[in-house]
Amino acid sequence: MIWLKNAWYVAGFKHELDGDNFVARRFLGTAVVMMRNSDGKVAALRDMCPHRLLPLSAGRRVGDELECGYHGMRFDVSGACTLAPGQTNIPKQACVKSFPLEEKHGLLWIWMGDAERADPELIPDIRWNDHPDWTPSRGYHHIKADFRLSVDNLMDLGHESWVHLRTIGQGEEEVIPNYPVKVSIEGEGLVRAHREMPNIEAPPFFAMVLNHEGRINRWQTAISLAPSICMTDFGVYPVGTSADGAYRSHVLHLLTPETETTTHYFWSVARNQRLDDEKLTEDICKAIAQTFDEDAVVLELQQKQVEAEGGPVPRLALRVDEAPIRARRVLDALIQKEKEDPDFVYRPQLMIEDVTPELAMS
Amino acid sequence: MIWLKNAWYVAGFKHELDGDNFVARRFLGTAVVMMRNSDGKVAALRDMCPHRLLPLSAGRRVGDELECGYHGMRFDVSGACTLAPGQTNIPKQACVKSFPLEEKHGLLWIWMGDAERADPELIPDIRWNDHPDWTPSRGYHHIKADFRLSVDNLMDLGHESWVHLRTIGQGEEEVIPNYPVKVSIEGEGLVRAHREMPNIEAPPFFAMVLNHEGRINRWQTAISLAPSICMTDFGVYPVGTSADGAYRSHVLHLLTPETETTTHYFWSVARNQRLDDEKLTEDICKAIAQTFDEDAVVLELQQKQVEAEGGPVPRLALRVDEAPIRARRVLDALIQKEKEDPDFVYRPQLMIEDVTPELAMS
Amino acid sequence: MIWLKNAWYVAGFKHELDGDNFVARRFLGTAVVMMRNSDGKVAALRDMCPHRLLPLSAGRRVGDELECGYHGMRFDVSGACTLAPGQTNIPKQACVKSFPLEEKHGLLWIWMGDAERADPELIPDIRWNDHPDWTPSRGYHHIKADFRLSVDNLMDLGHESWVHLRTIGQGEEEVIPNYPVKVSIEGEGLVRAHREMPNIEAPPFFAMVLNHEGRINRWQTAISLAPSICMTDFGVYPVGTSADGAYRSHVLHLLTPETETTTHYFWSVARNQRLDDEKLTEDICKAIAQTFDEDAVVLELQQKQVEAEGGPVPRLALRVDEAPIRARRVLDALIQKEKEDPDFVYRPQLMIEDVTPELAMS
Repeated sequence: MIWLKNAWYVAGFKHELDGDNFVARRFLGTAVVMMRNSDGKVAALRDMCPHRLLPLSAGRRVGDELECGYHGMRFDVSGACTLAPGQTNIPKQACVKSFPLEEKHGLLWIWMGDAERADPELIPDIRWNDHPDWTPSRGYHHIKADFRLSVDNLMDLGHESWVHLRTIGQGEEEVIPNYPVKVSIEGEGLVRAHREMPNIEAPPFFAMVLNHEGRINRWQTAISLAPSICMTDFGVYPVGTSADGAYRSHVLHLLTPETETTTHYFWSVARNQRLDDEKLTEDICKAIAQTFDEDAVVLELQQKQVEAEGGPVPRLALRVDEAPIRARRVLDALIQKEKEDPDFVYRPQLMIEDVTPELAMS
Repeated sequence: MIWLKNAWYVAGFKHELDGDNFVARRFLGTAVVMMRNSDGKVAALRDMCPHRLLPLSAGRRVGDELECGYHGMRFDVSGACTLAPGQTNIPKQACVKSFPLEEKHGLLWIWMGDAERADPELIPDIRWNDHPDWTPSRGYHHIKADFRLSVDNLMDLGHESWVHLRTIGQGEEEVIPNYPVKVSIEGEGLVRAHREMPNIEAPPFFAMVLNHEGRINRWQTAISLAPSICMTDFGVYPVGTSADGAYRSHVLHLLTPETETTTHYFWSVARNQRLDDEKLTEDICKAIAQTFDEDAVVLELQQKQVEAEGGPVPRLALRVDEAPIRARRVLDALIQKEKEDPDFVYRPQLMIEDVTPELAMS
Repeated sequence: MIWLKNAWYVAGFKHELDGDNFVARRFLGTAVVMMRNSDGKVAALRDMCPHRLLPLSAGRRVGDELECGYHGMRFDVSGACTLAPGQTNIPKQACVKSFPLEEKHGLLWIWMGDAERADPELIPDIRWNDHPDWTPSRGYHHIKADFRLSVDNLMDLGHESWVHLRTIGQGEEEVIPNYPVKVSIEGEGLVRAHREMPNIEAPPFFAMVLNHEGRINRWQTAISLAPSICMTDFGVYPVGTSADGAYRSHVLHLLTPETETTTHYFWSVARNQRLDDEKLTEDICKAIAQTFDEDAVVLELQQKQVEAEGGPVPRLALRVDEAPIRARRVLDALIQKEKEDPDFVYRPQLMIEDVTPELAMS
């Protein structure tokens, strides 16, 4: 098993359940259908009729119930059957498993493990997706790769210099891995990798957001929070100005395993400046979508290679692999604990503040 | 093994072998090629050259023989090799298995089991496809599902109220499973499920065939005849008129397993009124094709679910499942008998007459 | 294992590595990337970065090195890493396997086995692809079949009468298998099958190359040289003229296994007449491409049948199978020797001369 079961996973954006609809999506290998009740509460059910196995999402919504498209069995959001065709008594096995589903920070969070342990307090604080001081640009990518390859990718931002030259990567003499990175582990689930790049040329994306063509200072902090959330905290400011005025973003990479070889990648790029500039919001969406398209190509190639060749990745540990390897070990340790200790519950802590990090560069 | 081997299966419509052609089709997992001899007799061979395994259907027909497209070996309709390239003596292994193929009721019937037991008298009497008192509308669907899911579907006509609202299903207050069904087993292979629906609104298909918009009486008798033929006998007539004048159809569902997960579905909808109305014949074809397209969507979804989730279906038995479950048991018992008793031969009996059934409704 | 490991296989045409490019191709199941150094030497590396497994061919060429597209690791043509991102010391495991690659007769030759045994003197003499007395028409087919099915096909030219009637096959009364074939084995790897067809009608291809419509004499010698090269030596000349003036071709069928079920088919049809007729060169390309398209249809059908039905082919040995069966036995014996004797190295000898064969026909 490559997944931590007792944990909140991002199931989508809150707005996806606006209106009288439902959303079908697979998480950790299990097909789920989600909807918002007329009383405003969100709910998630196993997406399979207990009778003849049809996906409920192949049927229709009737009020606050889902009706199977084969025989009209209806289920409320608790998974209880409210109507069985041609009979008044409802067999007690006629129910659908429900999953805890919560809303927080503008997101939907699902708990695929033991429902009794699903404490909403355990949802990590990633407030920047939905906070008045930050403006998000949001999107979604479906990645045909194990989510751990995405975490590797996000914890090693050095790859930007080869994969993302058209948007965010430094090229030539200033390739990112040449700047030292400091890796730390915090709590039982968080790995942080911080790097500063003083006095560099601005890659196209940063020139755009700063509206500035000259040389800049740049920092990037890659954070992974087990089991599968990453966050890139970056700041950029023109050389000669103060870091306090930096253009900052919290880039939320909300990864949720769909299957062992595919991943939902919800993302939100929250910025601290030009908050009302809608064109900028849209331009960031486009640039980040392009950037993550570039990652998808690499990740999907890598997935195929891993499937064909087997064995662990990386095969060969470079310095750039320190943070990804630590993040994998942190997750493996949690999965091991969950397996061994029936009372164990992982309490994720995102110990990050909105203050500018202490920078070594001026 | 999910198939009864010693039985006649429908291999196609008789008219498919008109002319100087051949038809390649897989039955019970085995590729077969069929043709009509110049003396009018039909024949079926294993569709594989015994030399280098090419399908004979990838070659050509030469008179009453099939010629392999690789080296020109020729086989007559008994499967004997009549010509081997570059040699005058023909090796005795150079022959192709032939299968008994018969014509009856406008259909082709193939026997995939022990050829010595292939008694044409065992072909069931489904005369309505080819009878002067009945006019058929015919068609074919290729279903990507186990044929038993189709039998389930056809023995439980209650699903019409959800799957076929646009053609034959009653909706809203008159959903079909609300009308009681009487299930009986006849002989060793036949299950019958009879239901009457007095004084209902006419679904679009019945309004069309009756040319009548008001309320109607309707009956439906679903019959399964092991191993894989179903028949729906339905009648409709305006409220206030006599059942003796009912518009009736014998809907023949001629299912033949192609593989364990795919099914040939030949169908013929024979009616007893407006026999010469060719536009009606065509309109019925269209409406029924649409109806069976709707079934195909459900069946193919269900097949995928069964493959992914495993286990028996239904998982949960509702009242609507009585007839399908009995039909499965009848088939399973026959397969078991065939396995255990080397002398056993199943003798299908379609004990249905063209008289109006005794109806409880007026 | 169906492959002889210690042997030279054709990896492509020499001209494919002209310029500042690289070519990625799979041989014997292993992905390889090939390039020509700036000093003119060709080289082949395993197409996989030792770090995160990305194909090197998904990166780019930088001078004489390949750069991985994920983290910019660079490898020279020996497979040594010359640059690792973010570090000055290069881990010693950071290297890529290289394969011996040679150029001879206008072709690239790769050795996938034990590199120490890769003696360029073992490359077979197939000079006609690149010789002033012969003009080649060249092409490539990707065949979705085991290369041994192609060898079968090429050692049994009788199939031309059914597969290639539009180009090179005799039809009707003159079907090729009716002419006797003489099969001989030479050395440890070569099988030869010679057939003469006096006074026959000229199939379209031969009428074109001879620019002659009347009856002709034709010979064909099919040669297989283990592990996977075939050559068809044919000659045609008008009846009443001398064989010494025959239009001859050496048709080189340079088969290299890509996987167990797919084959690279490089081909070169070298002729001894009208050497400077560029339109003829092009017309031969077109006719042969069409001919091999016809073979591909048969071979791919056969591959599917072999996968579905299992077992050896042919199932049934006809006279036309003598040469293919002998060629398979020769290859099997070499593979067996390679397995049993660690010191064994196969020395292919193509004992063919450019003299007209001794013909029985006038």
